[in-house]
Amino acid sequence: MILAGIDHRPESEDVAVVADHQVIIRVKTALDDIDKVEIRYADMYLWQEGTPMQTTTMRQDLATQSNQYWSLHVTVPTNRLIYGFRITDRAGKTVGYGDDGFFDDTTDNWTVAGHYFHLPYLHVSDAELPPAWVKQTVWYQIFPERFANGNPQNDPATVAPWGSGPVNRDSFYGGDLQGITAHLDDLQDLGVNGLYLCPIFTSPSNHKYDTVDHFEIDPHFGTKADFKALVDGAHARGMRVMLDAVFNHFGAESPQWLDVVANGQQSRFADWFHVHGWPVGRDSQTGRLNYETFATGAEMPKVNTQNPAVQDYLISVTKYWIEQFGIDAWRFDVADEVDHGFWRRLCGELRAVKPDVYLLGEAWHSSQALVGNGQFNAVMNYPLTTPITALFNHTLSPATYVGKTNLQLSQYRWPNQQVMFNALDTHDTPRLLTTLHGDLAATRAALALLIMLPGSPCLYYGTEVALAGGADPDNRRCMDWQPDATEAAMRDFVKTLIAFRKQHADCLENGTISWQTTATSVTLIRQSARTTLTAHFNLG
Amino acid sequence: MILAGIDHRPESEDVAVVADHQVIIRVKTALDDIDKVEIRYADMYLWQEGTPMQTTTMRQDLATQSNQYWSLHVTVPTNRLIYGFRITDRAGKTVGYGDDGFFDDTTDNWTVAGHYFHLPYLHVSDAELPPAWVKQTVWYQIFPERFANGNPQNDPATVAPWGSGPVNRDSFYGGDLQGITAHLDDLQDLGVNGLYLCPIFTSPSNHKYDTVDHFEIDPHFGTKADFKALVDGAHARGMRVMLDAVFNHFGAESPQWLDVVANGQQSRFADWFHVHGWPVGRDSQTGRLNYETFATGAEMPKVNTQNPAVQDYLISVTKYWIEQFGIDAWRFDVADEVDHGFWRRLCGELRAVKPDVYLLGEAWHSSQALVGNGQFNAVMNYPLTTPITALFNHTLSPATYVGKTNLQLSQYRWPNQQVMFNALDTHDTPRLLTTLHGDLAATRAALALLIMLPGSPCLYYGTEVALAGGADPDNRRCMDWQPDATEAAMRDFVKTLIAFRKQHADCLENGTISWQTTATSVTLIRQSARTTLTAHFNLG
Ligand SMILES: [Ca+2]
Ligand SMILES: [Ca+2]
Repeated sequence: MILAGIDHRPESEDVAVVADHQVIIRVKTALDDIDKVEIRYADMYLWQEGTPMQTTTMRQDLATQSNQYWSLHVTVPTNRLIYGFRITDRAGKTVGYGDDGFFDDTTDNWTVAGHYFHLPYLHVSDAELPPAWVKQTVWYQIFPERFANGNPQNDPATVAPWGSGPVNRDSFYGGDLQGITAHLDDLQDLGVNGLYLCPIFTSPSNHKYDTVDHFEIDPHFGTKADFKALVDGAHARGMRVMLDAVFNHFGAESPQWLDVVANGQQSRFADWFHVHGWPVGRDSQTGRLNYETFATGAEMPKVNTQNPAVQDYLISVTKYWIEQFGIDAWRFDVADEVDHGFWRRLCGELRAVKPDVYLLGEAWHSSQALVGNGQFNAVMNYPLTTPITALFNHTLSPATYVGKTNLQLSQYRWPNQQVMFNALDTHDTPRLLTTLHGDLAATRAALALLIMLPGSPCLYYGTEVALAGGADPDNRRCMDWQPDATEAAMRDFVKTLIAFRKQHADCLENGTISWQTTATSVTLIRQSARTTLTAHFNLG
Repeated sequence: MILAGIDHRPESEDVAVVADHQVIIRVKTALDDIDKVEIRYADMYLWQEGTPMQTTTMRQDLATQSNQYWSLHVTVPTNRLIYGFRITDRAGKTVGYGDDGFFDDTTDNWTVAGHYFHLPYLHVSDAELPPAWVKQTVWYQIFPERFANGNPQNDPATVAPWGSGPVNRDSFYGGDLQGITAHLDDLQDLGVNGLYLCPIFTSPSNHKYDTVDHFEIDPHFGTKADFKALVDGAHARGMRVMLDAVFNHFGAESPQWLDVVANGQQSRFADWFHVHGWPVGRDSQTGRLNYETFATGAEMPKVNTQNPAVQDYLISVTKYWIEQFGIDAWRFDVADEVDHGFWRRLCGELRAVKPDVYLLGEAWHSSQALVGNGQFNAVMNYPLTTPITALFNHTLSPATYVGKTNLQLSQYRWPNQQVMFNALDTHDTPRLLTTLHGDLAATRAALALLIMLPGSPCLYYGTEVALAGGADPDNRRCMDWQPDATEAAMRDFVKTLIAFRKQHADCLENGTISWQTTATSVTLIRQSARTTLTAHFNLG
């Protein structure tokens, strides 16, 4: 038996509280090594008073490249559980595994309390269960400057003709909030029921990730009345609205940073940033900046989110747009580079204001430390979606694709997994069609696989009309409002997929996951009590 | 290569921030399988601009029953790191391991950002580094009713002669705060520099874990003036003081619970507990209680710590004794059965009041979810200390002892490991000497091993005079103030041990840990830059 492959952590992603008194417990073993895993469990106090342990065989669950997971849904009437695993390998050898490691599978050993893992007391509040609406949501990401120009009056001075190219870093095309509102019926027809808007606050750039004023709509995008009309129009159509907040850094033109530049250490915002020398700037010898920034440029000074005054300000921003406009969700840019202490405070205060708010962190990697633990419901799930394009580009074999996908599907508790933000492309990546070298069939297949996976899928605007585009800024081309027949066919396909997702909501949100692979195919099976859905992808 | 044994989690106990810009990174492999682990790391943004990866070989660290840890202390100048592991097995085969699992060790693969783990941004505040004084502290646990009777005037009515037996559940002997204060010189002479007092607040019992009034000293223990004198006297001698708070449940005689009993649903404390039916009591048919309690008895109703009013009250209790009396630390009883959301709020508010407060949770099992993450500095570390007595009782082999101990030494980040509360016995266990069947030599050896391990060691009152005692209540015998020669010799030994601990503070707090075993011996080696300490335990 490969003991080295056996692992379980109490009160971690290995113990997912899914509802009051309901947990999914799992344990990891080496792949192709173990024949059976049983769990023995009881309420500790009742057991000490004579109630016997219950023994149940665990279900063989997902397998990664190296390990096999086993899981079981357990009801915990008293909210308390101690449990240990009895593991049998393929040769019939058994071992006990618990809190103090491995022990011989003897009757005596199973009477020792110290051998058992503990679920000391299940408080469902600690599960921080995500709002239910998110797993029923198909998102649509809009880059507002490029979606639709609803009001030429508010266009920037240097506006290029809609759809003209090439798209440059400093291009403006005049897209705005009124343009989005004008197309809400189209989006409702497509079937999406969540809008994720890239930043809309005052900023000099077209992408607006360099915020100047978090309390104002950028004038080129419109007014607060326009935003109110957009949110109300979305809500009237059963769509949720998510805004994008950039709290890791401010724009260099923000009044706070300008004040620091002007007044140095005397600025009342001097401790709003991470400044190591005065005046702020580059060392003339080394060329190094004497303040922290996003990445390595000078334009986005990093915010000191450990400063309570900064925390107060940023939290007031997020509350303002919830309380005044009724938005449903916040996406936080570069969330992984901001301190966890700040996120815990912000997320706690927002949930007090709006219990069913969806809080999403941007990250590009496995981020268990950001999910739960008083923080986000979910992160942007690039590690799950990147292998999908690799699979259809034939740079990952079917078996490796499944192993890597199952690894990602094991990173978070199941209730969080159900609301992970799954996007095949965004404003930060090349477009799906371009990543797949223009292959429309592969694009359709990738979208179908996305829809079949657990999580909250998101379409990047234009995907439904086969919009192409390479890396930033080419991935931010204007929306094509005059699709040709091929593009219109793609829209029909996407609409059908979304309808399929909704038709089989229970199975696709909650069903078990299993896979079959050959050298040239992947089959994904989702199964719920009443439904089995099988998707077969031919890669030959 | 046993891939199944390889594991690393970013932003977990596998990445311990030990100071600003300083981290210890570790990875786990199968035991006796791997020859070398290299880590490749860089700042992601600098790497993308051309700075090459740095490659360093990791140190072979602790080994459990099944796995080998490898670790490295890394300086992170820019606070950001991406990193991957290149692992070579004993046959010379290599593999890459990172955020998306395993990959072939090719030059191309090491250029793929998605293969690397992320330390997105090191905020030292998130490390929640414990106060430095704790790792320099040797604690002394006092059960106040049994330590010394400093004032016969405040004795309970039914007081038994000091030292008479047997000790019953309802025995009273008259111990009090003045008794402790009167013996501070003795304790200083012994060398301890931290006092942990079991509960001292109003309560009808001798143990006082069934609190009636958290704002009052029990009259049998004395007055607030007595407590002030105790704290001031301890501080004058360089000793810290830790109090014990029972927030999982209240005593049945607490005014809050009595109000619920009297007024039912109309009580203003009705939602201070977890009541499922009215009036509170036992179902006449099933005999089941209709409210949650500690364990299964009726006398300790479980507190609803999710109720903000309850949180306010309990937090005000903890602040009161810090602000009015200057105590240094809180130990929280049954901490593992209280919700994490409450602990995060309480710990955050206490650290705002007293940044160097030591916050300790009671737990009897591995409790990563309680340590850090906005919560405790440490937990009571029974899983580390229980194997010590098993070793000297010959119920664990030396090799198994070391494997299980190393598992526990790997459960928490190193800064937390250094302040874990390591007690060989407490008011909740049989006394050390009795667990070791009266073997004085084994008792001395176990204490020596305790002193050699990282953590904050604690002696239970009377251990220094070889006090015996079985399970509760026999483990709470009166302190023996007239030791015979054998007992006095034990005191000399303990005093020598504590002096040794202080003399070699740097090495014993910070030094590396390694072990050698034979079938009949365990050798523990602690090593710092300038000191090597070797302890050899003969078990033959
Ligand atoms: Ca416009
Ligand atoms: Ca007394």
